[in-house]
Amino acid sequence: MMSADRTETSLSKTINVDLGERSYPIHIGSGQICYADVGQYVLGKKALIVTNETIAPLYLDILLGQLSDKHVDQVILKDGEQFKTLDHLNLILTQLIEKHHDRKTTLIALGGGVIGDMTGFAAACYQRGVAFIQIPTTLLAQVDSSVGGKTAVNHPLGKNMIGAFYQPQAVIIDINSLKTLPDREFFAGMAEVIKYGLISDYGFFQWLERNTASLLHRDEKALAYAIEHSCLNKAKIVSADETEQGIRAILNLGHTFGHAIETFQQYTGFLHGEAVAVGMVMAAELSRISGGVSQQDVDRARALIIAFSLPIAPPEAMQADDFMRLMVRDKKVLDGQLRLVLLERLGSAVVSADFRLQWLEEVLVKACQN
Amino acid sequence: MMSADRTETSLSKTINVDLGERSYPIHIGSGQICYADVGQYVLGKKALIVTNETIAPLYLDILLGQLSDKHVDQVILKDGEQFKTLDHLNLILTQLIEKHHDRKTTLIALGGGVIGDMTGFAAACYQRGVAFIQIPTTLLAQVDSSVGGKTAVNHPLGKNMIGAFYQPQAVIIDINSLKTLPDREFFAGMAEVIKYGLISDYGFFQWLERNTASLLHRDEKALAYAIEHSCLNKAKIVSADETEQGIRAILNLGHTFGHAIETFQQYTGFLHGEAVAVGMVMAAELSRISGGVSQQDVDRARALIIAFSLPIAPPEAMQADDFMRLMVRDKKVLDGQLRLVLLERLGSAVVSADFRLQWLEEVLVKACQN
Repeated sequence: MMSADRTETSLSKTINVDLGERSYPIHIGSGQICYADVGQYVLGKKALIVTNETIAPLYLDILLGQLSDKHVDQVILKDGEQFKTLDHLNLILTQLIEKHHDRKTTLIALGGGVIGDMTGFAAACYQRGVAFIQIPTTLLAQVDSSVGGKTAVNHPLGKNMIGAFYQPQAVIIDINSLKTLPDREFFAGMAEVIKYGLISDYGFFQWLERNTASLLHRDEKALAYAIEHSCLNKAKIVSADETEQGIRAILNLGHTFGHAIETFQQYTGFLHGEAVAVGMVMAAELSRISGGVSQQDVDRARALIIAFSLPIAPPEAMQADDFMRLMVRDKKVLDGQLRLVLLERLGSAVVSADFRLQWLEEVLVKACQN
Repeated sequence: MMSADRTETSLSKTINVDLGERSYPIHIGSGQICYADVGQYVLGKKALIVTNETIAPLYLDILLGQLSDKHVDQVILKDGEQFKTLDHLNLILTQLIEKHHDRKTTLIALGGGVIGDMTGFAAACYQRGVAFIQIPTTLLAQVDSSVGGKTAVNHPLGKNMIGAFYQPQAVIIDINSLKTLPDREFFAGMAEVIKYGLISDYGFFQWLERNTASLLHRDEKALAYAIEHSCLNKAKIVSADETEQGIRAILNLGHTFGHAIETFQQYTGFLHGEAVAVGMVMAAELSRISGGVSQQDVDRARALIIAFSLPIAPPEAMQADDFMRLMVRDKKVLDGQLRLVLLERLGSAVVSADFRLQWLEEVLVKACQN
């Protein structure tokens, strides 16, 4: 049943995301060598690199150097979740048309989750679909958003409400790019790494507990291990359920709470990973009350989250009512029924509507008192 | 190899569009009875009808009456191709979020091609994909745009540049709705009907030549035959090539020329079908010069187009240079090479880059002299 496999060389690792004719590799390596892999996935003569003002000065020239035999255009967007909108998507589309990119073009997302999500959605809908490559430069994008084909932009009324399931040609991860990542963003990425331990891999959860110090020092070997095992877990789940008809939804542990926080702050406060960290603590609490995990399990999850300097409580301005109002817009709501990802135990999660509203309110009120 | 089949009853006809797990029926009938079919395709408790200011007063109440057991919201857009934009798409998406529609909702397109294209694209990208139903009320939408899953909005720089291949649950065609269709729109729809005769069905072309008078009188039997055979031809081609990797492109006969006209006029002059009519005459001319059809064939095509009061020359303000500038943005351009649909003979077309630029210029200059 293992639907993701692994090839190792001394230089790099490759994980295959098994989706039939939409299968693709995740290359994990370190340093400029990674970029040499990009060219083979640009099938036509033209490509458009989409990046942002933070990343462009760091990596754009390296990437351009590897694509000197292609006609490459570029779009440099502002950096931030608040720019993940239809309007900014339109900047990418306009550039594609103005520069006469046709159906054989390839879009290249060079940046974090926002760049990857927007570039992927632009590729999904430009001329009804062109190729794209993910080059995630943040930990969060490397372990989560670049893998699995979820693309989207936000709507002022809800996160990721407009998008497509659309798979890249390849994901190319340069661990070296984490050296320039600010601490706060690094920690935010760790929230999603911890998530894999919580939802599907207790062995990995234990490894994270034991290797916290190495990760905090950004030890390259530890990072490579964490990224590889995150991608393996994600690839396995995505391969089993590409369009989230069932099991894939467990990847959203803490996200319904987290999205409510992000929407409340209009994407200008907590980072996505920070909001998810808070959400995972709330989901763990609800899981405990619902009869899943023990208090000790909740404490271990909370301790690991705290170890990576992540928040465990919602922003002060937010009340339980705000959560309820915003959570009912969640994409996991079906026929009016709110569903949440709950832990059965450490390393195993389910999507469930089987909790009392009263328990949820209890969790919300308690969280908002902190 | 016939991949579309037909079921007949005394009341209505059903054509199946064969696309594996994305297959769906086209129901063709007459009168309110058609709307009784809609409810079975609304799978959840909620639906959103998208229609426009012209159609709403005519058919919205009938449709609502058939869906009284569902929670149905509605969006009424302005009528016209110039409103087929990302901004107007956003009106649909905003309504879906504000009214708490979840992934089990069904969108219903009640209107012409613009409504169908926008509603389909909204369904494709709302929460990364929800169900939708096509209820085309114009001839053009009934014979062409509602079938085959092409959805899109326009960009100021090019028609249908932003969209998705996304198939409906069903297409429900009420021939009766053509009774209220203005002449000009009826004729515009006939351009696409004639197209099927030209590209893939010489017998149908001959039938159209013989039955012009009945069609001009909107004889219900003649209309039913024309719609059925248009849908059969389209279903056959779409089934063979859903995402336009090859043969499907022949459905664009005249469209590269036509889109250039529409873009030049910013979607406020010729109707789509009128622009296509002009484009088909230009494509037939180029086909003749390239050694495909005879002068007599071109004359027969032109005569049939004229018989339905359709234009055969571009707008006066347009010059050959305008065509060249706008045509290079066409979605059939591949790696910089302009490709056009050309006729091999009446009833058979190919996508070809095998024509001299000089011949194209000759056609453009001649057309723009008229």
